[in-house]
Amino acid sequence: MTKKIPVGILGATGTVGQRFIQLLEAHPWFEVEWLAASDRSADKTYAEAAKWNLSTPLPARIAGMQVSPSAPDRSAPKLIFAALDPTAAKTIEPAFAAAGHAVVSNSSAFRMAEDVPLVIPEVNGDHTQLIKSQKWYKNSGGFMVTNPNCSTMGLVLALAPLHRKFGVQKVFVATMQAISGAGYPGVPSLDILGNVIHYIANEEQKMEAESRKLLGLLDGASVTSAELTLSAHCNRVAVEDGHTESVSLQLRKPAQAEEIIAAWNEFRCLPQKLKLPSAPEQPVIYESAPDRPQPRLDRDRGRGMSAVVGRLRPCNIFDWKFTVLSHNTIRGAAGAAILNGELLRAQGYIA
Amino acid sequence: MTKKIPVGILGATGTVGQRFIQLLEAHPWFEVEWLAASDRSADKTYAEAAKWNLSTPLPARIAGMQVSPSAPDRSAPKLIFAALDPTAAKTIEPAFAAAGHAVVSNSSAFRMAEDVPLVIPEVNGDHTQLIKSQKWYKNSGGFMVTNPNCSTMGLVLALAPLHRKFGVQKVFVATMQAISGAGYPGVPSLDILGNVIHYIANEEQKMEAESRKLLGLLDGASVTSAELTLSAHCNRVAVEDGHTESVSLQLRKPAQAEEIIAAWNEFRCLPQKLKLPSAPEQPVIYESAPDRPQPRLDRDRGRGMSAVVGRLRPCNIFDWKFTVLSHNTIRGAAGAAILNGELLRAQGYIA
Amino acid sequence: MTKKIPVGILGATGTVGQRFIQLLEAHPWFEVEWLAASDRSADKTYAEAAKWNLSTPLPARIAGMQVSPSAPDRSAPKLIFAALDPTAAKTIEPAFAAAGHAVVSNSSAFRMAEDVPLVIPEVNGDHTQLIKSQKWYKNSGGFMVTNPNCSTMGLVLALAPLHRKFGVQKVFVATMQAISGAGYPGVPSLDILGNVIHYIANEEQKMEAESRKLLGLLDGASVTSAELTLSAHCNRVAVEDGHTESVSLQLRKPAQAEEIIAAWNEFRCLPQKLKLPSAPEQPVIYESAPDRPQPRLDRDRGRGMSAVVGRLRPCNIFDWKFTVLSHNTIRGAAGAAILNGELLRAQGYIA
Amino acid sequence: MTKKIPVGILGATGTVGQRFIQLLEAHPWFEVEWLAASDRSADKTYAEAAKWNLSTPLPARIAGMQVSPSAPDRSAPKLIFAALDPTAAKTIEPAFAAAGHAVVSNSSAFRMAEDVPLVIPEVNGDHTQLIKSQKWYKNSGGFMVTNPNCSTMGLVLALAPLHRKFGVQKVFVATMQAISGAGYPGVPSLDILGNVIHYIANEEQKMEAESRKLLGLLDGASVTSAELTLSAHCNRVAVEDGHTESVSLQLRKPAQAEEIIAAWNEFRCLPQKLKLPSAPEQPVIYESAPDRPQPRLDRDRGRGMSAVVGRLRPCNIFDWKFTVLSHNTIRGAAGAAILNGELLRAQGYIA
Repeated sequence: MTKKIPVGILGATGTVGQRFIQLLEAHPWFEVEWLAASDRSADKTYAEAAKWNLSTPLPARIAGMQVSPSAPDRSAPKLIFAALDPTAAKTIEPAFAAAGHAVVSNSSAFRMAEDVPLVIPEVNGDHTQLIKSQKWYKNSGGFMVTNPNCSTMGLVLALAPLHRKFGVQKVFVATMQAISGAGYPGVPSLDILGNVIHYIANEEQKMEAESRKLLGLLDGASVTSAELTLSAHCNRVAVEDGHTESVSLQLRKPAQAEEIIAAWNEFRCLPQKLKLPSAPEQPVIYESAPDRPQPRLDRDRGRGMSAVVGRLRPCNIFDWKFTVLSHNTIRGAAGAAILNGELLRAQGYIA
Repeated sequence: MTKKIPVGILGATGTVGQRFIQLLEAHPWFEVEWLAASDRSADKTYAEAAKWNLSTPLPARIAGMQVSPSAPDRSAPKLIFAALDPTAAKTIEPAFAAAGHAVVSNSSAFRMAEDVPLVIPEVNGDHTQLIKSQKWYKNSGGFMVTNPNCSTMGLVLALAPLHRKFGVQKVFVATMQAISGAGYPGVPSLDILGNVIHYIANEEQKMEAESRKLLGLLDGASVTSAELTLSAHCNRVAVEDGHTESVSLQLRKPAQAEEIIAAWNEFRCLPQKLKLPSAPEQPVIYESAPDRPQPRLDRDRGRGMSAVVGRLRPCNIFDWKFTVLSHNTIRGAAGAAILNGELLRAQGYIA
Repeated sequence: MTKKIPVGILGATGTVGQRFIQLLEAHPWFEVEWLAASDRSADKTYAEAAKWNLSTPLPARIAGMQVSPSAPDRSAPKLIFAALDPTAAKTIEPAFAAAGHAVVSNSSAFRMAEDVPLVIPEVNGDHTQLIKSQKWYKNSGGFMVTNPNCSTMGLVLALAPLHRKFGVQKVFVATMQAISGAGYPGVPSLDILGNVIHYIANEEQKMEAESRKLLGLLDGASVTSAELTLSAHCNRVAVEDGHTESVSLQLRKPAQAEEIIAAWNEFRCLPQKLKLPSAPEQPVIYESAPDRPQPRLDRDRGRGMSAVVGRLRPCNIFDWKFTVLSHNTIRGAAGAAILNGELLRAQGYIA
Repeated sequence: MTKKIPVGILGATGTVGQRFIQLLEAHPWFEVEWLAASDRSADKTYAEAAKWNLSTPLPARIAGMQVSPSAPDRSAPKLIFAALDPTAAKTIEPAFAAAGHAVVSNSSAFRMAEDVPLVIPEVNGDHTQLIKSQKWYKNSGGFMVTNPNCSTMGLVLALAPLHRKFGVQKVFVATMQAISGAGYPGVPSLDILGNVIHYIANEEQKMEAESRKLLGLLDGASVTSAELTLSAHCNRVAVEDGHTESVSLQLRKPAQAEEIIAAWNEFRCLPQKLKLPSAPEQPVIYESAPDRPQPRLDRDRGRGMSAVVGRLRPCNIFDWKFTVLSHNTIRGAAGAAILNGELLRAQGYIA
């Protein structure tokens, strides 16, 4: 590739926007050339507009860039990564798609829309074909692709290899989610220090609906949801990054522990075959120590793009129990969208 | 009562031992007159032997008391509260029972023994009749009574009122347990700060077995376990005190949300009728705010003796989902044993 | 006292406002009869307007009370406890004083005003005489009294007994302050979990100026600041309640360690003599264990109204080094103001 | 370099030992070929003996290595990095030096010994000449070099450039130190969660003595300590990695803020000139935002080898106040020793 593809970021100053900047720094295909944020930030430099909150320094080139308003304009590149809150996304993202942009969004606003692909490249990379039925695509060449919620991501990465081989029928999941999932300023410290909040608005509904769509089958111009029942309990814990989940699982076909572990460890898919730059070598890693995975020790596996599974053991009610972890702002947000962007380029949707 | 009943504490220097001392200070019926700990501590004063770790000051009378070795001797009172680790309990507790002591234990060592009552006074206060079949009781008048594990306590308090009215059939539970449950020094800070440990050795097995015994029926000289299936996921979080649990529940008879909430709020039992001094006025409290209960705000309800329930909502797989909290070193340990001691006195086992 | 004195609370929904409500519940002299908050909260019940954030339940009587706008009206009682942020206090507090109210404020807005007493009853209870020079007092009988900043409180309680006996000349202090000092939502959890923020805006200046005024002498109608130099470093740590401070101290007269410890432990003053209801029996408590005081274990001493001092040891540069702790929302805020209110009543300023 | 220099690690299973392994993985000069730990671990593989506690995976080559007993044997390489506790170091380190090994130690046991260099390569790289006066060196070619305590490191890196230009006369410092500084299991979580411990045994004495030796001048075969007075207050906070310190400073010559900041930012020394592999490009970095440095955001600057300084402002008592941060297990321990090892090789002490 002689020249990098220019990309823009909507919601560039927030927690996920910052991760986009961090992960796209030195990306082999993409280069950030346009940043947008709310009107309050517009016309400031990025360094003035954002309270940089990551432990790697803000890249100097980005620090000096002007922040644009969140509206399509001539300077915005074709490919836009979007990290908007759902209310803002509701109007801003369609405006960009209508104006011919490829909107690769982390927002929940359009994930469940019938003609919008909800994609994890390892799981349902073929769902991007829904793009062709989007009216934006027909009119302007613009389109929209989404990735799932951060709590859905780790779960579905762990379920997908089992669903292919044994069929997933029922899933109980209790999450322990990191504070970075709530953005910045997000969770007040008085609420979470030495505490747990057993409620995250709408999170359980998202996990239940998104999992069925992600594991569903593309059938012409629509996706038929997978026939699995999921019951989620979502909790917020005093962890900086990394969502972990306690899962009980009922399969359609019997499976031995070794078969399940092999299915996880051997799971390789489209992004690995296509050698997408952000694809982890091993999307699902099984750790055998009983106290693993843990957020602090395991969230950065595969540069934050691998899900880590552990403690596979029999369940008294369903078939199996296990723990799964994934990094919520990398694999569960910015990294997910970047991997989607890479897939779209490999599939020819982005030139 | 003109004179208080003298009591002793085994394992007096540990986390639960300290709670015994704190809760028995100014107790209307009992007075601590004997303290024992490991050989390392014996013959020191309590202030020298213990690293007092509670936010109320160590009572001066206790500070100056001599710590005895953990063996029955003439100075040990009839009633002994025991806060030993299971390995120590295995030999020390029977030695005391054989020597004629009433051993009211928080240890897991004998909870599942057929002739040892595992008791929550609100749930199965009649199980104390098992005492009469204990060989110690026949030989020396000594006996042993136990309370459940700290993670079992909150769950069973929430299940009991529903089991009576609707029958509990299946239970999924994922716990988020406080560090004080592991004693002192217990969990290293490097393991838990900003982290979750998704493993507590043997905890899931204890919850599953103890719940069935607690909700079981006394049938002559033995207890028939309740026919319910429980699947537990036990996790350790960075909370000082208070275990919370995400629960999904299948009932035998259909129940409306209002009926369930009423069953919880109206639940009054033996300890309330007997006006036992440590009995909470309301053993189970339903809080309607979606983000309650939380450990920090709700663990001290009913002086740490009430379980607090919240977020009752339908479950996609079973009937209902909810959150339950109880204070792990009060209701789940020292307070549980003291309430058992009070019940035994009210029932005439202790004079 | 046959009837309690009615009191109002300005800023009743915030962190300090909630402490006022908690501490005034069951107060022997005062009864909360009026609550005010920002316009957003006005005309709601208190339960609707406030996110109650304390571990004791919101009293039912308070929950149902109507929240008033923050302006003097007929229903507002004479005595008003104020927990406003400084910007709001700047206009609201004088309006109440002008309207004849006794404003007992925790805000920094008027602490350094020449005719406004800045008072710790144990330290400078006579400074309330400044009231008589306030124009409000002359015109309407209204007046204003303030208590110091939460980080100043513990320090000055520790310095006062030494200043009286030996003269305090120079003080270095580095604070480690709790998150509750920043109110709610206050410090974002992403900023403080596993972290320290070494900056609290204006805090160091407040400590330096307020200490000199508090230890100063009343001279007719004005206060001559104490001649001591103070250099403060203020830091925010992941502690819920309780500010601790590392202090180095230069005295004017030589003092032995035993003399200093005795000066602290024997310090009894006006509020103890007057038996004010919120006065701690022992305002300054010396703990001899090298790892004390600590926020978690010692902040509630004297019902949160005592300062706890420890680790007195020689300093290489000045004379002595020590650690001091006080509860920032009790002794350092709501409790401080209530004690000031009690003093004012004992002195006859409030009938 | 065609072949890497083989190195051994004493105390390989502890917190600092693990950092040695992590930092030496892919080191351009050194290769770990020998690991030793306490007798309990000896003859196990490293994976069996150590509870790996870092967020990068344990290298597979190391995992399978046999752990040796902590005694000199034929298989131990010349260059030994030592991460022993002081008691063990007292006997084990001299045994290795006597047996001809170059012992590069992180322990406090011999730091203040007259003929043992205490070295920060940026500060006093010439002090390694003391090696020549060691009896071990004369007898067997073995020798010992040490690096300072983790809390001394950041302070002295910040003081050194100022000491050279302006002369440092007096220093007050209050530390807020990370839990990893206490090793593993180290600080119990019940002691530090939501708390501060204002005591670290012997830490203040170490800071005071080591700073004077480090900033001292080599005078033939001995070091004359710098004439500066230091008063330290050492505190433990709930931070995983990164010690921060609040410092007040008196200089011998007047200095403007800009001069001080320039002295920090422009400080380049021996390790930078020699291009030692672990040397940070910029050993001291000044950050101008008022809330920086912070442990979470700044500890990894210069791959954990830079000290970060901020908040330079006038002091009421001395000349200047500031905050300094350095990574305690990298710059303050394993990285410090590795940099010392690199210096020794560049100086020809290790072939």
